[in-house]
Parts: sequence; C-alpha cells; structure tokens
Amino acid sequence: MSRVYNFSAGPAVLPEEVLKKASEELFEYRDSGMSVMEMSHRSSHFQDIIDRAEEDLRFLMGIPDNYHVLFLQGGASLQFSMIPMNFMTINRTCDIIHTGTWTDKAMKELEKLGSFRKVASSEDTVFSYIPEISGIDFNDDADYIHICHNNTIYGTKYVEIPSNIKVPLVADMSSSILSEKIKVTDYDIIFAGAQKNIGPAGVTIVILKNSLVDRIPDGIPTMLDYRTHIENGSLFNTPSTYSIYMAGLVFQWLRDLGGVEAMEKLNRDKAELLYSCIDNSALFKGHAVKKYRSIMNVTFSTGSADLDKKFVSEATQNGLSSLNGHKSVGGMRASIYNAMPIEGVRKLVKFMNEFESHNK
Amino acid sequence: MSRVYNFSAGPAVLPEEVLKKASEELFEYRDSGMSVMEMSHRSSHFQDIIDRAEEDLRFLMGIPDNYHVLFLQGGASLQFSMIPMNFMTINRTCDIIHTGTWTDKAMKELEKLGSFRKVASSEDTVFSYIPEISGIDFNDDADYIHICHNNTIYGTKYVEIPSNIKVPLVADMSSSILSEKIKVTDYDIIFAGAQKNIGPAGVTIVILKNSLVDRIPDGIPTMLDYRTHIENGSLFNTPSTYSIYMAGLVFQWLRDLGGVEAMEKLNRDKAELLYSCIDNSALFKGHAVKKYRSIMNVTFSTGSADLDKKFVSEATQNGLSSLNGHKSVGGMRASIYNAMPIEGVRKLVKFMNEFESHNK
Repeated sequence: MSRVYNFSAGPAVLPEEVLKKASEELFEYRDSGMSVMEMSHRSSHFQDIIDRAEEDLRFLMGIPDNYHVLFLQGGASLQFSMIPMNFMTINRTCDIIHTGTWTDKAMKELEKLGSFRKVASSEDTVFSYIPEISGIDFNDDADYIHICHNNTIYGTKYVEIPSNIKVPLVADMSSSILSEKIKVTDYDIIFAGAQKNIGPAGVTIVILKNSLVDRIPDGIPTMLDYRTHIENGSLFNTPSTYSIYMAGLVFQWLRDLGGVEAMEKLNRDKAELLYSCIDNSALFKGHAVKKYRSIMNVTFSTGSADLDKKFVSEATQNGLSSLNGHKSVGGMRASIYNAMPIEGVRKLVKFMNEFESHNK
Repeated sequence: MSRVYNFSAGPAVLPEEVLKKASEELFEYRDSGMSVMEMSHRSSHFQDIIDRAEEDLRFLMGIPDNYHVLFLQGGASLQFSMIPMNFMTINRTCDIIHTGTWTDKAMKELEKLGSFRKVASSEDTVFSYIPEISGIDFNDDADYIHICHNNTIYGTKYVEIPSNIKVPLVADMSSSILSEKIKVTDYDIIFAGAQKNIGPAGVTIVILKNSLVDRIPDGIPTMLDYRTHIENGSLFNTPSTYSIYMAGLVFQWLRDLGGVEAMEKLNRDKAELLYSCIDNSALFKGHAVKKYRSIMNVTFSTGSADLDKKFVSEATQNGLSSLNGHKSVGGMRASIYNAMPIEGVRKLVKFMNEFESHNK
C-alpha cells in the first residue's frame, strides 16, 4: 500500500523529504563508510551531527547564548522528575496550572519530591480551556511555575503565558515546540519529547537558562543531574545518536522551508481549514473553547460514540490514519504537526464533509 | 567510499543484512503506510514489533518466565542509579568487584544512594584481569553483588561468575550480551545498553527476576521505578521505538544465523585469530591476562605511543576504522562484536602482520 496521512498524536508523521534522505544515508553516511547508527558518539562525524543539530535548533527558535540546549533520554516523563530534583530546591514547592493529563503526571512527580500548589485548573470542563492568566494568584515563594504549553490530549494551547511573575517559568512544549514563534526568554526551562514536531522518539530536548544551574544540589544521581549533560555537551554517555541525527534532518528541513515563522503560517492555515469545517458542521463539535484551540491537535466528536467509531474506521479505510481520540476525552483527534502536509488536512476535511452528508 | 570494517567499541558495527532491511523499510513499513519512526507506540504494528523483539530475545538467551524483559532508556549509566534505588533497599549496601571504568562509574552512584564494599579489584594492574572468584569473601548482608561481565575498555571478561552466594547477582552485560551462551538463572538482574551487540543506541535491555520486585520501595520517581515499566510492558511513556525495531531486526538476524551458540563459536574463532596474531608477534602485546581475555574487545599495543598512533592512522587509511584504544589504557582496541564479519578480522590480522614487517 502507499503512505497514508498519519494523524497520530505521537510518534507522528515525519517529512517525506527527511525520510527519503534518511533511507538513502542509512546504509552509509556520506564518506564515513558506515551508518550513523554504527558511529561512535565520540567520532568527528557524530560530533558534527550533534553540533549542527544544536546550531540549527538555536537558529530556528532564537535561543540565546545564556541558554543550554541538551539532547537527553527518557522523554518528557523523566523531565517531570528531573526538573524538581534539580530546581525545586529552595522552598521545595512550585506552582502549576493544571490543564490536562500531562500536568497531572507532572503533579504526581512533584508530590514525591516536594510539594506544589495547583494555582488554576480547567478540570471543571474536561480541560476544554486554559485558565485566564490574569486571574491567577501566583505564589512568590514558588521555586518555579510549571505549565504545559499545548495539551495534546484535549487540544488546547496557551495564547498568553504568565508574565510579571517573580519566579522562573518551566514549559512542557512536547507538542508545540517549533510549531509557532515563541520568545525563548519568556521561559527559564523548555522541554519537549521529540516524537511530535522534532523527530523519532528517543531524544528529549531541554532548553535551560544557565542562571538556574546554581540551584542544583549535590548528590543527585549523575544521569539525573543536568550539569552532567551540560558539561559533556550531551555526550556524558552514549545518547540516542540516530534520533539526534533524525532531529537534525528535521531542523534542516524546517530551515529550508523558511523557519518557524513560515511553518506557523502553514500550521495556522491547516488548523483554520479543519476548525472551519467543524464550525460549519451540524454533525461535528469541537472539544476546545475557540480562544484556546490548539493548532497542533484538533479534538472533535459527533456526540455519539458509535458514530465516532464509524468515522475513525471509515477514515482509516480512506488512508486517513490514527484519528481516534485519547480514551480520556473520546471522539476524534487530528494531530496536524509540522510534517502533516496541507493536502492531508484537505483530504480529511473532504472526508468529514462526505461523512456528514452520509450520516445526517 | 565503500563501507569500512568498523572496530568501534560502541555504537558499533551492525549486520549489513539488518541495515539493508532497515533501509528498505524505512520509508514505509510493510502495510502500515508509514515509517516505524512515525508509528504510535500504541498501534498494533508497534505492539507486534516490541512483542516479537521480546519473544526473540527470550528465545535467544533462554530467559525463563519468571524474569521480566524491559526495553528502557538512559543506557547502562542510568541503570547504575536505578538498580540501587530499587533494590539496594534492605541493608542499603552491596558488594562490587571492581574491574574497570564501568564498575568505577557504578560505585560513584552506589555511594550516593547507600554504600558498597569493594570485595575485590584488579586496579593494581590497570584492570588486566578478573579477580579469582574463589578468593573473594562476599558479605551475606549485601543487598546484591554487582559485576561487569565484560570490560569494554580493558578487554577482560569473566570466565566464572560468583556462585554459592546468598544474595542476588547483578551483571552489566553491555558489551557481552548475546555474544556467548550464559545461564540467565545464574543472575538476578542483567542489563545492557544496546549499542554494542543489540542495535543502535537509545534502548537499554533489563532482564529482571520477578522475585526482586518486592524490594522496590514506594516514592521513587515513576520513570525510575521498574514496576512502572513492568506493568506497562515498557510502554508507560513513548519508548525509543525505532531502536527497539532495530534491536528486533538484529535478534531475527541472530536467530536465522543459528542463535547464540552459533554466534559464540564464530566469536571465539574471530578472537582466536586476533589473539594468535598478537601472541605470535614480536611487536604487538596484549593488555589482558590470557585467561580473562574478552572475545569482544581485544586490547593491544606496540609499547610505543607514537607507533600506536601510526598504526591506527594507517589502519584507518586501509578501511579498518576506530582501532584507537580508550584513553585510560592507550594503545589499540579492536571491538569484534557479533556483527563484525570474520573477513574484517582477517583483514586486520593481515594488516597487523604487514605493519609489523614494515616497523621492525
């Protein structure tokens, strides 16, 4: 069969150009005489790959020199523990805005390592919105504020972020990194699993303001201490080398395409197409409140679990894959990350219109 | 240029058949319509991949049902902390046999999380041997005994392992797993980073006797608690999916080749070729004591740092790559893992003989 349009929430679609280049280079990378997978992480070839990946990411996101860029393992899930171990070390408490499954998981880890205050939450409406920032009373004694920038499961995103706060801001950007222009200096830590907008699973990006490093206490297990990875350029031990190589190819693809600004425009066009279809439909209903709609994860349903199931099944038969919603919200979810071509969204919209006309 | 013979200690050479298959399937995996890299870890295709990988590894190593098999992230380096966090929980002390860099790294982590007793060591001769097991006085109150089964850097390996001990045995098999027949039930925990005999970096294999699970205390960060990964079949969060797929291809290649027994015979033949060359040479001298010679990592030198450098450089020009020894021991190291064809070793031996005749 031929390639489908893959709306998976992650691991997710990768650019075809990147996959083609990877196929060509897999057996033998340039003049190295070996695959990237076989290369020592101490080799000059691999050093070039990781240096170039960092340089491109810095360029794409406008990351200033006073931020470290790390390529780690363990996913965002391990960051939920590493961040408090390293940085929730002054008053051993932090503030968190609860907007879904991923902040819930973060809270479970915070509880083990100190305490947290849930300063706002959208759990009253199954996380269909982001709490208004202006109404939140942040605690000045919090070691930091934790937010999840885009909620993969419920399809919401921040439209403004906490400002005029006195403590560092930590953002989980797993499903929104590189999808829209952000100002890195608004944050003190940004982290993201790669498997949505960056590359294959196995590498986790951490962007970390260097002034925070002083907070790290001694005695943390070596692999969980950010200083280990900072001091060794993410090469203390063998990292997930091939995932870093793939991330590098994606960064180059994004640069060639015009960078994050160009990508954001395309992403907004794609999201607009899909949300218009939902808004003009008598059958489909969006889950997220309009103002906070994600441009990466579009959640919707027919209101009938049976009809939703039929939709997902028929869509799959039509080459539109992985449209089932997360079990905690049900319905459908179309993840339209950077690598999803607009043609895929057009095909989905066409299918939704047809499905609606057949299921009035 | 064409493919070289890659003697890197890890990441290391992979079977050409595996790389070819991976190249062919990279863009589109079977009837899935997508790359394995793009596949949800919750998809049936990926579930088949990880199930098959586990089944093949169980078959190859003869892993009984009362052992868990986990596919984790973070390398052996993270295991150095996870193992004591989870299992050094009774008397908070363990015994360790110090045989090189990797047990040194393990001790650093043990110290942070409890204590250890170095019950034997070969540091007196730059780790050129493995201490005699019969002469070691193990402590009955140790929570476990930690050994490194094969020392990648110094080129030594165990020929007998602690038996008649009253406490669990934990073995780091990063550079020897699947290279020779072992009896899994001699051990309570076996762990190994993939990037030597299994596949690309990014996945860590943990084989864990289920009776140990009772020792795990509550309150450990979720990602560092083995129960998380046991209960979720290594799919609590997104694992390094592509690395697992590649490991699976290597397992299938090894099964097709006749399994670990056939592989061990080939490995012994390869090692014998190389050690014979060293033993018959007036120029090259092996680092490891004969009895404890590794069949995976062959360490040797000319006795002159300049001549060693010349050797590595000329070897590289002759398509024999990554022969430089680790900085802590110097000289040369030829890592001849499972995927190194015997032709590569023959070419190296020929080159060594020629080099010797030109540098008398």
